[in-house]
Order: sequence, then structure tokens, then C-alpha cells
Amino acid sequence: MPPSELDQLCINTIRFLAVDAVQKANSGHPGLPLDAAPMAYVLWTRFLKHNPADPRWIDRDRFVLSAGHGSALLYALLHVTGYAAMTLDQLQRFRQWQSLTPGHPESHVTEGVETSTGPLGQGIANAVGMAIGEAHLAARYNRPGHEPFDHHTYVLASDGDMMEGVQAEAASLAGHLRLGKLIVLYDSNRVTLSGTTSLAFSEDVAARYRSYGWHVQRVPDGNDLDALDRALRAARDETAQPSLIVVQTVLGFGAPTKAGTFAAHGSPLGVDEVRKTKANLGWPEQPAFFLPDPAMHHLRSALEKGQTAEAAWKRRFTAYREQFPELADEIERRFRGELPARWTDSLPVFPADPKGIATRKASEVVLQELARTVPELVGGSGDLDPSTYTWLKQDGDFESPQRPRDDVQGAAGGGWGYAGRNIHFGVREHAMGAAVNGLAYHRGFVPFGATFLVFSDYMRPPIRLSSIARLQSIWVFTHDSIAVGEDGPTHEAVEQLLALRAIPGMVVLRPADANETRYAWQVAVERTDGPTTLVLTRQNVPTLDRRVYAPADGLRRGAYVLNPAQTEPELVLIGTGSEVSLIVAAESALRERGVRVRLVSMPSWELFADESDEYRESVLPASATARLAVEAGCSIGWDRWVGSRGAILSVDKFGSSAPGEVVMKEYGFTVDHVVERALALVRHKG
Amino acid sequence: MPPSELDQLCINTIRFLAVDAVQKANSGHPGLPLDAAPMAYVLWTRFLKHNPADPRWIDRDRFVLSAGHGSALLYALLHVTGYAAMTLDQLQRFRQWQSLTPGHPESHVTEGVETSTGPLGQGIANAVGMAIGEAHLAARYNRPGHEPFDHHTYVLASDGDMMEGVQAEAASLAGHLRLGKLIVLYDSNRVTLSGTTSLAFSEDVAARYRSYGWHVQRVPDGNDLDALDRALRAARDETAQPSLIVVQTVLGFGAPTKAGTFAAHGSPLGVDEVRKTKANLGWPEQPAFFLPDPAMHHLRSALEKGQTAEAAWKRRFTAYREQFPELADEIERRFRGELPARWTDSLPVFPADPKGIATRKASEVVLQELARTVPELVGGSGDLDPSTYTWLKQDGDFESPQRPRDDVQGAAGGGWGYAGRNIHFGVREHAMGAAVNGLAYHRGFVPFGATFLVFSDYMRPPIRLSSIARLQSIWVFTHDSIAVGEDGPTHEAVEQLLALRAIPGMVVLRPADANETRYAWQVAVERTDGPTTLVLTRQNVPTLDRRVYAPADGLRRGAYVLNPAQTEPELVLIGTGSEVSLIVAAESALRERGVRVRLVSMPSWELFADESDEYRESVLPASATARLAVEAGCSIGWDRWVGSRGAILSVDKFGSSAPGEVVMKEYGFTVDHVVERALALVRHKG
Repeated sequence: MPPSELDQLCINTIRFLAVDAVQKANSGHPGLPLDAAPMAYVLWTRFLKHNPADPRWIDRDRFVLSAGHGSALLYALLHVTGYAAMTLDQLQRFRQWQSLTPGHPESHVTEGVETSTGPLGQGIANAVGMAIGEAHLAARYNRPGHEPFDHHTYVLASDGDMMEGVQAEAASLAGHLRLGKLIVLYDSNRVTLSGTTSLAFSEDVAARYRSYGWHVQRVPDGNDLDALDRALRAARDETAQPSLIVVQTVLGFGAPTKAGTFAAHGSPLGVDEVRKTKANLGWPEQPAFFLPDPAMHHLRSALEKGQTAEAAWKRRFTAYREQFPELADEIERRFRGELPARWTDSLPVFPADPKGIATRKASEVVLQELARTVPELVGGSGDLDPSTYTWLKQDGDFESPQRPRDDVQGAAGGGWGYAGRNIHFGVREHAMGAAVNGLAYHRGFVPFGATFLVFSDYMRPPIRLSSIARLQSIWVFTHDSIAVGEDGPTHEAVEQLLALRAIPGMVVLRPADANETRYAWQVAVERTDGPTTLVLTRQNVPTLDRRVYAPADGLRRGAYVLNPAQTEPELVLIGTGSEVSLIVAAESALRERGVRVRLVSMPSWELFADESDEYRESVLPASATARLAVEAGCSIGWDRWVGSRGAILSVDKFGSSAPGEVVMKEYGFTVDHVVERALALVRHKG
Repeated sequence: MPPSELDQLCINTIRFLAVDAVQKANSGHPGLPLDAAPMAYVLWTRFLKHNPADPRWIDRDRFVLSAGHGSALLYALLHVTGYAAMTLDQLQRFRQWQSLTPGHPESHVTEGVETSTGPLGQGIANAVGMAIGEAHLAARYNRPGHEPFDHHTYVLASDGDMMEGVQAEAASLAGHLRLGKLIVLYDSNRVTLSGTTSLAFSEDVAARYRSYGWHVQRVPDGNDLDALDRALRAARDETAQPSLIVVQTVLGFGAPTKAGTFAAHGSPLGVDEVRKTKANLGWPEQPAFFLPDPAMHHLRSALEKGQTAEAAWKRRFTAYREQFPELADEIERRFRGELPARWTDSLPVFPADPKGIATRKASEVVLQELARTVPELVGGSGDLDPSTYTWLKQDGDFESPQRPRDDVQGAAGGGWGYAGRNIHFGVREHAMGAAVNGLAYHRGFVPFGATFLVFSDYMRPPIRLSSIARLQSIWVFTHDSIAVGEDGPTHEAVEQLLALRAIPGMVVLRPADANETRYAWQVAVERTDGPTTLVLTRQNVPTLDRRVYAPADGLRRGAYVLNPAQTEPELVLIGTGSEVSLIVAAESALRERGVRVRLVSMPSWELFADESDEYRESVLPASATARLAVEAGCSIGWDRWVGSRGAILSVDKFGSSAPGEVVMKEYGFTVDHVVERALALVRHKG
């Protein structure tokens, strides 16, 4: 068979696997697989370095389907190139209960799927994180003649991706960082769910990407395999800039009545249109899920090519190991997701201090030690390092080695190039979130991203996705309440704490003092199968005297009794974060009045809920119904912990602009008010 | 005094009012006022059409300080131009408790402040909404020779704004819509909170805006008043494109040691540096808050100019009224925020129907009638109209009259130009949210924005701001649970419902059927002093037979008893939205088993919480402790309503990809399972 005919056979095999899967499910998006199959085919058979037999090969190229609604295309590619788990049966169970072929790709469900995409714009921003990851690992571990890290990150993106703000932020960041190994294929079919892009989208995307510093090419015909090949080659040759290839396509290519219309976007073509599309492209109507032998023979050569490539890499890695045994060990350890031995030994212990320090500041101290012992810890903030205190001071900035730094101020340290571990995300919280996820998807990292708690709202989608995809993304949110003060309600978190707790699978930690902060970081770094959120104060909080109060590692159980010696409490005061110091002070005042108070620090609802019934009963006995929770956040959800007879001192309105201590006082967060509320409960009880 | 000297005197008056306010508060951002005072001065004294004596004049130009951290500049401008409420005392109480000068501008606190800004990127996107508003009102009400609407929207934006994704989305939309009366001054000082922009931001912003279709100019020296004047004039002359003016400035201009450094960004200069800055710019050290007479005389001429301009406009409006009395009445009614007489009379009543319709579909029916009676209802979706059903079918698309429509598909209807009421926001949820807020800030609108519930995460910041600023923004979120089905967990809302309820001041409504949906819209349209969120199903739900069950206007009280005839319940079933049909069916099954069940539909926690204790007791009597809440969302917060002895049937993990009815069944949302859980409660009670 002539090469060009074989190419078309392969492309149509991919196209109709996807179309048949959508039609069988009677649900899904057939348009993108029909138009994007040629570019995917060229990429996967001529460029993509992967081994279907080992989807976790460290140095594989990453492929991100940012247009996650085209999932059937990805599943078809996985099947035809030989990923064992992606059987034909799975394709036939597209979008069905517990299949490996869910409606949008889910990386923790399906081997070979690199990212969980679907919410538009996320994939391309994840890819920026992956490319950061590759650049960093290469800078850190590669040596002359020894390059264990040398892979590309490819993206297939759609018009919808190109409209999303997170994409814009990420693309600007990638241009700034000159991530030369990032290559985006933009499937420009000019049709979206609700119509043609001319309804809402007439910008010049190519010019926009040039303004970011990208290398931009156009392929005027998405079916022109030679042009696609040339463009991909040129993109790989351009190593100093990320590449965008704008590929002009026709949505639902080949569908005689629906091609180029939004009817081909988000609904199955229909039995009749599928039949006509197959006829139109010279494809047999039956059987469905047709796999012609010559096509499969050609496509499955990916297995042999992949095995060969990985075997060669392994030989090179063996040579690398001989020269650099410690580095090789470290690489393998990082990709196993194992932490270094004895990494917690040197974490700081903070002495008791009534004046205390802000938990963001304690976090800074802990971070410096973690940075020393855990090299995979890499991250940054959304232009707030001087406030979030998240610089790793012994390490430098992650930056393009080509970029002049003459006018740089405020950096952690220059001259590190891509080996720096402090990523300056800019005022781009959303892209930061998605890029941190990208580092986690890549593996080899314990990544973190930091901003003010109130701005977690700017990055809810990637935070949610970190939990769906079970990524070890660590979210560091400082300035955690109305105590922020002068900046006012737009900068004071109220409902964000609850909104984060509400995300399934998220662990939220609001440590009470410096020593709880240390354990909060420990929990986050140990939690390799899901995200953790640290919620930290702007203002100082006392460092509790742990000779008087229970040890701070109680944080690991979510809630613990601070004063276990008080065994017959008539009242339970529950606090989190900065409000623990309030309940501690209130306990003294109440004790003077003869009230027997139990103090509970409750840094995490989720960890506490995961404890045994016995442990929970030991902290919050059912008999102790007089309970007051004190937290400078909204009250919703606290009823579960205080019960029908308990009370909640909370913030159920927006904050105010005034010095932080004034705002706290006006909102009732004083020792006197806690005492008053507590006494009302005890009296009420009596 | 020569004009140029007077200009400098005025500019320095503004500069040092702001600097002294920051210094007195010992908190705030002095850098931007120092560098941006010249452009603000030129804009406010030579271009801005405003009347300080009537901050609500309908046809005033709107000025948006997108860089809300520069609030002291805005307060200084309001004071010097004669806004009565902005006294010198208020400036001296900058950032203090209950002052009119909070840390970031709050439109509901301070007259003359058009928008609540501070979270970066929001202001510029609000301004796009305002410019949409002006264009729409002009297209709808202006007549040849009679133009009651003819104002500009000006923005002062910072480097931080230019990095945010919401800004990118909004700018792309504005370029597409060719909003020629939108003019953005970009104060490009190249310094952010954490350092110079060279750390993270090296794109060519001017080229980017050109790629969106904007008219772009550069002013190389932000102190060059003539150049600023020329650029603003050219921007106004360009009526077919929005305008960006990139003004190169030096952050903290004049501060001898801190100018151009990030030390001048977010902290007071310090007493010593203030002294030296004053000396440097030829300003007396004392008194602080110095107001030289010649400057004030010149600046306060804004009052007379404003009075003259508004008086002229009023004469023209009187002439307009004579010709078009009904239109004039309608304009004034809209700006008073009053609804048309008898607007609810014709809202549909849906007949009982066991098969029913989706509440998104019922919403579509209600919307068509609302569109007919309430002309201020204007909105659109984030590229999801065919799914959210939010097209106003009798009206056309909001679009530039200049744009060719040859290839448009999927539109509500062409040829309306800016008079269309269906805004195509594109796949830009975040900008949609901020633009809807912009319409509300502008006044004269009851604006709405629609997308899937799960994507409310993409627009949390503007949703929150709509509540802070007490805007009548209506958020319509369809596809509200795991019942979405095939699209899978990334598209299935779980925690979003709670996260929205958590926003202070938000009213969230999840109607149970078509008739509750009608009242949900009524609540939203009537609620002029705050935002409302409608949460609607993708799937059909039965339309309850209201001859059997209580009237649907019970929705207005947040929760109500569906079967009040059952006066001695031993069990209370509480449901919201699509789960009400489940509890209704379960009640029949339980009745057959002799269990006396009360049915409560609870579409809104917030409205119910606002009811009297008596009403709440009448719905959920304290004595009825056996309560089961059924909602396909996360359980947090339900404890408040079911109490310590109650139970919750909820979703506390992510959704799954499978047909919606399969997912609902697998997650326990079946009549049998509700019955089982209910019986367990009654047995437990016994």
C-alpha cells in the first residue's frame, strides 16, 4: 500500500473508532476527532516519544489533550498504538459506568492519559507546568553527554481553550520562561458548542501568541500531512521559544450535512450521518469499530519503536548511574514518589513564645529546612512572595538562562536558570494552579503554589482538579481572615475556608501556631495521593507552650485536646488557626470563674472525620453538648461539630477595612466575647 | 500662574493627598498615585464628563480604577473635584473603621466610586460590561438628534491587571464587540508587589491588544501632559475600536530612594521618604494634606463644569421626553431600579406533569415572558446557550453593527446591532461574570450570566464581588449535579452549591420543578440590592400537582411544607431541586407502610434563615427530630437543618461518567434508598 494511502487508512481508523464510540454511547463529541485525527496521527506516529508498554517511562514525551471533550480521539490513539488497558471493549464502553473511557479524560483512571482535562483551558496550562518540570529536571540532573531528561510536551487545544483566561495567563508565562520544548497544536475549527466563533471570538490568536514571545506557524489545511510534519519539525527545531501551530480544520470533517456546524460539536452525529460520513470518506459502514489490518500493523509499530527508545534510554541511564550514582538514585526516588530518608528529623521546633509569630512566617522557617532535605519541593507564588513568605532562600529563581536580569528586583536569586526552584508565576493565580498541577502530573515533584486565601477563588478550577486527579499539589494560602485588616473586604477571606473544605478529597489545614505549622507541612509533604491546603495567618499568633499543652503533632489527627488533664469538662471550646489563642486565653478566664473547660484545636475537619469513632468520641464526647466553636470564617458546617446545643462564633458577613485588630474586635473576636458566649452556653445548659 | 505650573500644582496636590493619606494610615499603596496622578489629572480635568454634585447622573462617563490598590488616588480625585461626601476628614481616616475611604474602593460605601475593585483584573472587565451597557442603551433609546446616552467608560489599569486572565478574556471580548467608547489607560510602571515585572511578565501588551482588535497608543513619558492629552483625544476619536493607551511611568515617581522599586508599591513610603519626596517635587513638608488655593480653585471648577453639562443634558432629555415620552419614562424607571407595573401577571403557570420538564427548560419558558415585560433583562452565557436555554428568543444578538455575520451560526438572531439583548460572552466565564457586574454597576439593567454549575468555579471572584457590591447580578447555573452523567466528574457539580451558599449575602435558589422555577426568577428579578443564583437541572423533573401539594410560591420563604395536611409527622423529608421528586415518591411508599411523613421543599437556605423563628418552627418543628435531607450535593451545612439526630443523603465524593440515571442510582438517589434511609431514622427514633 502506498504510504499516503496507508496514512489515510490509519487516520480514518482513528476517526471512526472515535465516531463509533460516541455513536454507541449516544453521547459525546464527534466533531473534534474527525477534524483533528490527521494532526494527532502525524504527531503520534512521527514525533511523540512514548512506549505504550510502559506509560510511566520517565523520559516520555507528554501529550495533553487540552480539548478534553475530544476524549474519544485520545482513547482511539491509545488503543491503536497498543496501550494494553485500552481494549476495544473499553472503547465500546465509552462514557459508561466504571469504564476506562469516561466522558472527559481522567488521568487516575486510564493509563496513558497524562492529565484530567475537560474544563477548558486547563490542559494547556497543565502543559506549561509539565514543560517547567522537564526544564527543571534537565537543568538539575543532566550532565554533558548524559541527558536523562530530554522530552517534549505536546498539547492539542481547541478554540474554546483559546478563549479561556487561564490559557492566556499560562501562555504569557510560557513565553516569558522561553519553554522551547512546549509545542501546542491549535485545532482551529472556528466552531464551538453554541455556534461559530464569529459570534464571540475574532481576535488574531497567532499575533497574540507572538506578543507573548512564542514561535508561531500556520497550517492552512488540517488534512495536509506534509505541512503538519514540517510545522512540527520546525517547532522542535525552535528551542528558544514555545511553539504554537495554528491548524485550520473543519469541525466534523467528512460529515456531509454537519461538517463545519456546531451540530457536529457536542452531540453524536446520528446513525444516518455516521453512515453517510463513512461513505463520504470511503469507509465501510460495517463493522463498527473497524480495525483494518494494514492500519493496525502500522499503528502498533509504536510498541516496537517505544520499546526500542526506552531500552536505549535505559542503557544511557545505566551509564549515567555509573557516573552519578547519587543523582540517579535521587531521580528514581523522586519518580517513585518516595521521600528522602529522615527528611523530618531536622524540621524546626519552635519554643514557646507568648508574642509568637505569624503562621506564614513559621511556614517560611519550615520551608527553608524542607527545601534543604526535599529537593523535589518546587513552587512559587502569584507575585506575593514578600507576603506569603514562600521563597526557598537557599535556591534561586526558575528562569530562562537566556533572559537578561539587569533590571530584576525582588528575586530569590539569579543565575540559576532552569535549575532554580522558585517559580515566579506573576499575578496569574489561575495559571499558577494549573501549572502546579502540571508539575504534579509530570511526577518527580512536590509542587506548591501560594497566594492570599481570598484569591483561592481565582484558582478554584485547578484546585478542584488536583483533587479529582489525586495530585500532590500543595496550596499555601496566607492572609487567612478578616484579620488582614486595612485591605478591606475584597482582600479578606470569609467563605474561602469552607469552600475549600467542601472539595471532596481535599485536606485543609489551618494550624494554630508555629509548631502546628511544622506538622501541617509534614502532612502535606507526606500526602502523595492528593492535594493539601495550608491556611496561614498574616498576623502573629502565640507559640503555645507545649509543656503545658498537648504536643502539636495532634494536628495529624485533625483535632486534639490541648488540655487533656481536664477530664471532666462542662464546656468545650473548639478553635482553629489564629482563634486557638483566643480560646486558650478564654479558658484561663473561665477557669477563674470555676468553669471546667476542654480546649480543642481543630486544624482539619477532614483528618478528624477520617479518625475512628473512638478517637472522635475521646475528643468531642457526645455527653459534652455545651460546645463553642471559634473561627474567623463562615459558620456553615460547624453545626456538625458543635451539635444542636452548641454555638458558633464566626463571620457570616464580609470583612471591613480597618487595622486588623480593630476588625477582629468589632467582629467579636476578643477573649471577653468568647468568655461571654461560653458562659451563655453553660448557663443555658444549667 | 502659567497653565503648566498650575497643572503641576494640581498634580502634586493629588499626589500628596494620596501619599499623606497612606502615611497617616501607615498602610496602603503610595507608588501608583505618585506615578499615575498626571494621567488621572488630564483625564479628570479635560475629558471626564461628570458632575461631582450628582454622582448618579445617568449619562456621566464612568471611571474605573481597576488598580484598586491605588484607592488613595481615587479618593484624592473625588475630594479635589468636589464630591461632597469625600471630605478631608475622610481622607485622613483612610483605611480606618467605617470610613468612606476603605483600603480598596467599595462602590456601595463611597459615592463617586463606580466599582468595587482590588482583586486585580476585575475592574477592566467590569468596564467592558459598562461599555456594553452604554452601547446597548444608546442603540435602544437614542434617536436621530436625540441622544440621551453618549458617555465613555475610562479605566486606569496596572501591570497586575494586565497579567490576570479575566482581563485577557474581557479585552478579547471588547475587541470583538468593537466597543469604541471604552478607553483604558495602562499605567505601565513595570513594578509589582514582589519585584519588577521582568521577573514574570515580558510580553508585548500593546501587540496583544492589537491582536484583539484594539486601537493602541503609547505615551513614553507618563509626566508628559500634552502627550496624554493627545492620546486621550485620539482614543475618543477612534469610535470603531476600544482604545488602550500604554503609559510608561516610574512607580513612586519623585520618591528619591524608592521610586522604581517595589518598596514603593504596597507599603507607606515612611516619614523620612515622604519628606524627601516632597522636597524633591518642590512641595512643602507641612502641612500634611496641603491644598493650595490656586490648585483647588482650578480643580473644583469640575463642579461648575459638571453642573453645566448635566443641565444641558437635562434640557436635551426634556426635549427627548416630549418626542418620546414612553421611552423617557422607561429610561427613568430603569435607572430608579423599579420594575414595570404588573410585570409578574403574565408569568407562566405550568400544569402538573408526572414526566415534567427540566428546570433549565422551565427557566427558558419563564425567560421569554420576562424578556417581553422587563426590557432591562439582558444577558447571555459562556458559549452554552443551547444547553443553558438562556436565549431571549424574541430579541437578537448584542453585536457590533459593523461586524459581518455571513458565517454566523447558532445565534439568537442577527441584525440587531447593539440593541440585541443576547450577549455572546464566548468561553470566557470569568469575564462574563465581571461584565455582568459591569452592567449592574452601570445601572439600568437586570443582567444575568449563565453557564454550567460546575463552571461557577471559573467565575468565583465576580460572583463574590456582586455580593460585596450589592449588585443585582443574576447567576444562572444549569446542569446542577451528578445527574449530568456522561460528561463525568469534571463536569458534574458537587461542592459548588455549598460554595455559592457560603458567599455572604448571596441568595441561592434550587427550584424543585417548573413552577418553583417561575418564582425563583421572580425572586431574582425583584432582588435589586444583591445577587441571586439560580441552580437548575439538566434532566427532566416532574411538575408537581399543586392541587395536591402546597403552592410553589412557598419558594419565596426559602422552605415550605409541601403536604401541610399531614399535621402529625413522625418523619420529615427535606429535598431541594431535582431531589424533591424523590422525597415526594418516597412519601407515598412510606405512607403505605404507615409512616407519617412531612415533605419540605427547601430551595433556599438563605431565604429560610431570614424568616421568623415562628415560621421556621412551623416548617421544621423542634420536636420533629427524625429528619432526612436529600440533596445531590455535598453534605456540609445540612446538619444545621436536620439536627444531631437527622441524616443526610448527599454526595461527598466526585461524580462519575455514565448515563445520568445510572450515576444517580449508583450514588443512592433512588426512591428505595430514600425509603430505606428514612425507615432507619424512624426505627432509630423508636
